Amino acid sequence: MMASRSYGDALPIAAYATPLAESALAVIRTSGEKALELTASVFSRPKILLQAPGNTLVHGWILLPPAGPPAEGGKEKAGRRKIDEVIISVYRGPRSFTGEDGADISCHGGIAAARGVMEALKAAGFQDALPGEFTFRAFMNGKLDLTRAESVMELVAAKTGRGRDHAVGRLAGSLEREIREIQALLVGTLAGTELFLDYSEEDLPPAGTDSGGINADEAAGKLPERAAAEFARERLRALTATYDRERLYREGALAVLAGRPNAGKSSLFNLLLREERSIVTDIPGTTRDWIEAWISLEGIPIRLADTAGLHASPDPVERIGMERSRELLEAADLILYILDGTAGITEEDRAFFREFGGLKGEKAPKPVLALWNKADEAPLRERPGFPVLETSAKTGQGIPELTTAIGAALEKAAGAGEKDRGLPGEGKNPAGIGTKRQRDLIDRAAAAVEEALLLADRREPLDLIAPLLREGVNALGEITGEVSTAEILETMFSRFCVGK
Amino acid sequence: MMASRSYGDALPIAAYATPLAESALAVIRTSGEKALELTASVFSRPKILLQAPGNTLVHGWILLPPAGPPAEGGKEKAGRRKIDEVIISVYRGPRSFTGEDGADISCHGGIAAARGVMEALKAAGFQDALPGEFTFRAFMNGKLDLTRAESVMELVAAKTGRGRDHAVGRLAGSLEREIREIQALLVGTLAGTELFLDYSEEDLPPAGTDSGGINADEAAGKLPERAAAEFARERLRALTATYDRERLYREGALAVLAGRPNAGKSSLFNLLLREERSIVTDIPGTTRDWIEAWISLEGIPIRLADTAGLHASPDPVERIGMERSRELLEAADLILYILDGTAGITEEDRAFFREFGGLKGEKAPKPVLALWNKADEAPLRERPGFPVLETSAKTGQGIPELTTAIGAALEKAAGAGEKDRGLPGEGKNPAGIGTKRQRDLIDRAAAAVEEALLLADRREPLDLIAPLLREGVNALGEITGEVSTAEILETMFSRFCVGK
Repeated sequence: MMASRSYGDALPIAAYATPLAESALAVIRTSGEKALELTASVFSRPKILLQAPGNTLVHGWILLPPAGPPAEGGKEKAGRRKIDEVIISVYRGPRSFTGEDGADISCHGGIAAARGVMEALKAAGFQDALPGEFTFRAFMNGKLDLTRAESVMELVAAKTGRGRDHAVGRLAGSLEREIREIQALLVGTLAGTELFLDYSEEDLPPAGTDSGGINADEAAGKLPERAAAEFARERLRALTATYDRERLYREGALAVLAGRPNAGKSSLFNLLLREERSIVTDIPGTTRDWIEAWISLEGIPIRLADTAGLHASPDPVERIGMERSRELLEAADLILYILDGTAGITEEDRAFFREFGGLKGEKAPKPVLALWNKADEAPLRERPGFPVLETSAKTGQGIPELTTAIGAALEKAAGAGEKDRGLPGEGKNPAGIGTKRQRDLIDRAAAAVEEALLLADRREPLDLIAPLLREGVNALGEITGEVSTAEILETMFSRFCVGK
Repeated sequence: MMASRSYGDALPIAAYATPLAESALAVIRTSGEKALELTASVFSRPKILLQAPGNTLVHGWILLPPAGPPAEGGKEKAGRRKIDEVIISVYRGPRSFTGEDGADISCHGGIAAARGVMEALKAAGFQDALPGEFTFRAFMNGKLDLTRAESVMELVAAKTGRGRDHAVGRLAGSLEREIREIQALLVGTLAGTELFLDYSEEDLPPAGTDSGGINADEAAGKLPERAAAEFARERLRALTATYDRERLYREGALAVLAGRPNAGKSSLFNLLLREERSIVTDIPGTTRDWIEAWISLEGIPIRLADTAGLHASPDPVERIGMERSRELLEAADLILYILDGTAGITEEDRAFFREFGGLKGEKAPKPVLALWNKADEAPLRERPGFPVLETSAKTGQGIPELTTAIGAALEKAAGAGEKDRGLPGEGKNPAGIGTKRQRDLIDRAAAAVEEALLLADRREPLDLIAPLLREGVNALGEITGEVSTAEILETMFSRFCVGK
């Protein structure tokens, strides 16, 4: 049934828009041709619904669909079983998210009520929506460009306020505007170049004159509007640099607590969980063989893992060598290595630093923050030869510094930090790259522009340069969806969740 | 902060109304004095929102609240950070669920967007809603009686369509109507009785006359309007009988698969899970030490548990005796005992039946369905002396019969089935008891009426009977909330989920 549908029609579709779980409300979203008529056919007050203006709310009951074909005279709904009491948000295209007519049905939360309403809607003629199909229709109907469409899904997946802010920026159009401005710069250079190519050389005014057309400078192989292309290149480079930072805020990072047994890993783990009010998931849970929980530090979603459970073997070398422990440490974006202050730095600690870096002068394959724990009992008396942070899980000493240090280390690793302040965009919601698709296209545009400018430096003919500029313009057009194919769109939207 | 609040004020409150998880939409519900004004203070289009009529939708952005006190001239929101793009459902009391003004804010799903919006609302002055506080306010403002209020939570917790249908019946007022009708019958008898008590004997007309007042029949100790009280008693008894059935549909039952190793427990378990399309939770998961999953059979939510994992010991007697296995079997509402058809009935099987019942003529502490499994390989050739159902997990033989038999056994155990058809109420959504609170009060009313009729049979004085009738009327009044105390209400509503 599902298999026969594909994106691009305007059939009436329905989907759960909220999770199916016990809660006060559940929302089922519908859109498409006859969405209001079909909803009315299973509604206790069909006339009121059909006459309701757009952007209004109608209260009533969803009823079991009539068993047979509708009886004459409209009296058939007497005695039909009530499924749920609902409030319907009435949308009339084009003033709706999708641009089509639609009814958002707010029913009682929980599983059975929402399922019953959905069954009634499907019996009335609605089809299951494909993933992202509402947003797809919004895009096709010109309600939003692709960067905004993608930001909708980013927003849903955002784990921290900072990730949300950046996605909201893109939803409000920060990336779209930036892309369109860069595109306009390139179009300027391209237009100048094509104008030149349209003229034969003898038609040109002499160099240095400015008669509104092409002059002999350009005839001599100089790229017209070169400054615009250079500015575009600069802004594309700045955008590219945002990707790792954006990904950090969006997808977060893995921070792994390691250290000898009894160094205080679990206490610090628990303290970081408690300290941080906005724990991202409420269930710390022991997934796999180690303990982990999502926390939010400095606006970065951090998967904090405690390897404590892995240290079962009495042999320290074997412990470190244990496969799972190694996997976790190798996957880590940041290692928090806990030194037992009361024991000092042992050979085992040194072995760890040799393996995973962090000691001064030794290679550091990934950031390691060394913590001098139990500092309340055993304050650090001499410099250990590498930076350490004094902490105490008992007194809370050093914990604010630790959270700042974790954030800074991760941002530094993602190339953020200093650069963060010089980003393109307008201050409050700076433009940044939200998805790999966007980055790949920006890379394509940037490569084309770099190449075009390189050829221009070499005074290569403009008819070699123009296609590169056009490639840059097109790649940027793909980002916003100005240039797109059905295939690209289907691939993109099929990654969305159903109901969006 | 929360501790200082209690039910019964009209302060502006806000709560998540949908689960905080990745999804298309999340809804935050608000209600109370200045709910619209406070929402407007963090909204991008405050004037539009404040001027919006009730039952309309307004589109815009939730903004970070102003840092300081609002600037003069209304220009302070320029440059405030956008939190999320939302649609606000505008409600104006008394035409709202709570009867108060309110704004339901539909924002992007996921955790970060909804959290950001909630933070903005709280900064604007909203308080966290207490559990059930929206419904509490709806009740206090006369929007629904207590049976309907309780059905709201039943509906949220409903696991199957049948549980939902019964809760919806109560939401539509089936129980309220039934209670009020029974109450009216008792009030009739009580009024007649009190009228009699107000007269002195000498004022009465002679027996047999009908002068609109009290006659000598009643003076002789006959209960006035006795037939009404008897009809009330009958309807109270019928209602009481619905409780176990309703609880079965609402809370479901535990069915445990048992049998010797290799009898086919796990295959049958998996088959029942697959067979049944509307699995109640999507994660079967191994909770505790056995495998279990919620399935819905015949509209009954069934927690199906497979004890397979418990049979680790090679000693069959010890296996059965294992503590956890025993706990599970003792908690079971129904045991599905799987016989290995290829092995026949073994001593071990007989030991089980002796322990848990199910063999003809032996005591059956709980329902046991005996299944003759692997019937495709080894059809049942002779009667085993007790009822068995032939099944095959391989061919699916007997599975439809099994699901019917499971439903019937559970309904029989809950006293449903035959009685189901003779229930009070109006056919489509019959009245039934939804909560223990309701049952306790119906029991109280029933006991009072039984006692009143008993005293009347003994020709006891009417001034002993009248208080019993009043007790019955009051108990029924407590069910609908006509009679209530702050304490009763707080206890009741605090069991609701937040956001309701």
